[in-house]
Amino acid sequence: MALIRSVFQDELDSVSQSLVDLTSMVAKAMERATTAIIDCDLKIAEEIILEDEKIDNYQHDIDARIIDIIARQQPVASDLRALVTALRMGSDLERMGDLAHHVAKIARLRHPDKAVPLELEQIITAMGLAAVKLTNKTGIVISTRNTEMALEVERDDDKIDNLHRQLIGILIEPQWKYGIETAIDLTLLGRYYERYADHAVSISRRVYFLVTGKYA
Amino acid sequence: MALIRSVFQDELDSVSQSLVDLTSMVAKAMERATTAIIDCDLKIAEEIILEDEKIDNYQHDIDARIIDIIARQQPVASDLRALVTALRMGSDLERMGDLAHHVAKIARLRHPDKAVPLELEQIITAMGLAAVKLTNKTGIVISTRNTEMALEVERDDDKIDNLHRQLIGILIEPQWKYGIETAIDLTLLGRYYERYADHAVSISRRVYFLVTGKYA
Repeated sequence: MALIRSVFQDELDSVSQSLVDLTSMVAKAMERATTAIIDCDLKIAEEIILEDEKIDNYQHDIDARIIDIIARQQPVASDLRALVTALRMGSDLERMGDLAHHVAKIARLRHPDKAVPLELEQIITAMGLAAVKLTNKTGIVISTRNTEMALEVERDDDKIDNLHRQLIGILIEPQWKYGIETAIDLTLLGRYYERYADHAVSISRRVYFLVTGKYA
Repeated sequence: MALIRSVFQDELDSVSQSLVDLTSMVAKAMERATTAIIDCDLKIAEEIILEDEKIDNYQHDIDARIIDIIARQQPVASDLRALVTALRMGSDLERMGDLAHHVAKIARLRHPDKAVPLELEQIITAMGLAAVKLTNKTGIVISTRNTEMALEVERDDDKIDNLHRQLIGILIEPQWKYGIETAIDLTLLGRYYERYADHAVSISRRVYFLVTGKYA
């Protein structure tokens, strides 16, 4: 029994490590997507668009492993909940990869023009940085199960929501001079960063709940 | 063994029926959200915003039942996959409820003004109708496992994508006269309907995969 338990624990740890790796992948994807959109870099944009499939496949592989562990080990109670939670984290991460992909697609669509006017570069860069930082922190939350840090991720998300509000505020200023198409791009970009961060927060909340049995 | 198997089948059927019920709930929510935004009806908007919690609770209840079934029945192979798929469908449906909620929130934010200018009412109404129709069809797909209909849902989604493209086309016409704020609202509304429909398509695809073992 001790041996079976230990094999199970190893398998759970290995799934957790793969989720941490996937978290790095989606953080890297959003970091580079932000570079693509700010620097108007078509090559990077296309790389991210291609690499999204790698993220999807990585997630499918984690999913298949989790289902296989449930089938073989027939876990109950907290072990089963941990595995179901891992499935959900995988979905969150896969979606974060999609959102980085969406940012890259706007960069590609507007190239060789810049999707982001000069005076909005700072706010988009800040949203990108904050989103990536929060995601890297989420990776640490998954690997350490640090509940204090899970709560920090939640607070960090407020910064992104603030930046998002500032962004919309700039778009609706009467002196806005970049036209509707750019406003639409920036509305969508703001939404992509916000949703991306929401998924990272959701992952941190799931860890918090697994560890404490309470909602953050 | 036959008895256990039959109890399991009953439980699976009951989960499936609950997913069908949840599908009706989110279809109804989006139908009413569309009425709220077109008719500028604050009462309906606030009802939907309040009722989103009911949808969330309903989904949490289905989730808990699925995890309980896995723990007690320890299913393997296709039975386990059906239950994991049911978990994912629940997440899709919960998110669809959120998106109806987002539409209602725009209606409430702009009230007593109309978020949708008269000449765009038709296209938003059409998106709403198509999204609700596709969702009701998805409910039938869940309950009948009709794979032909699952493929139809996929095709119906193209109509919504077309409407979405038309909508963006209208926003970027040089003669657009409703300003940036309205363009932002309509960009977000278009995105909400599109994402809502994407989740319905994703549910139909999951049923297709469960039945055929192939991706649609």
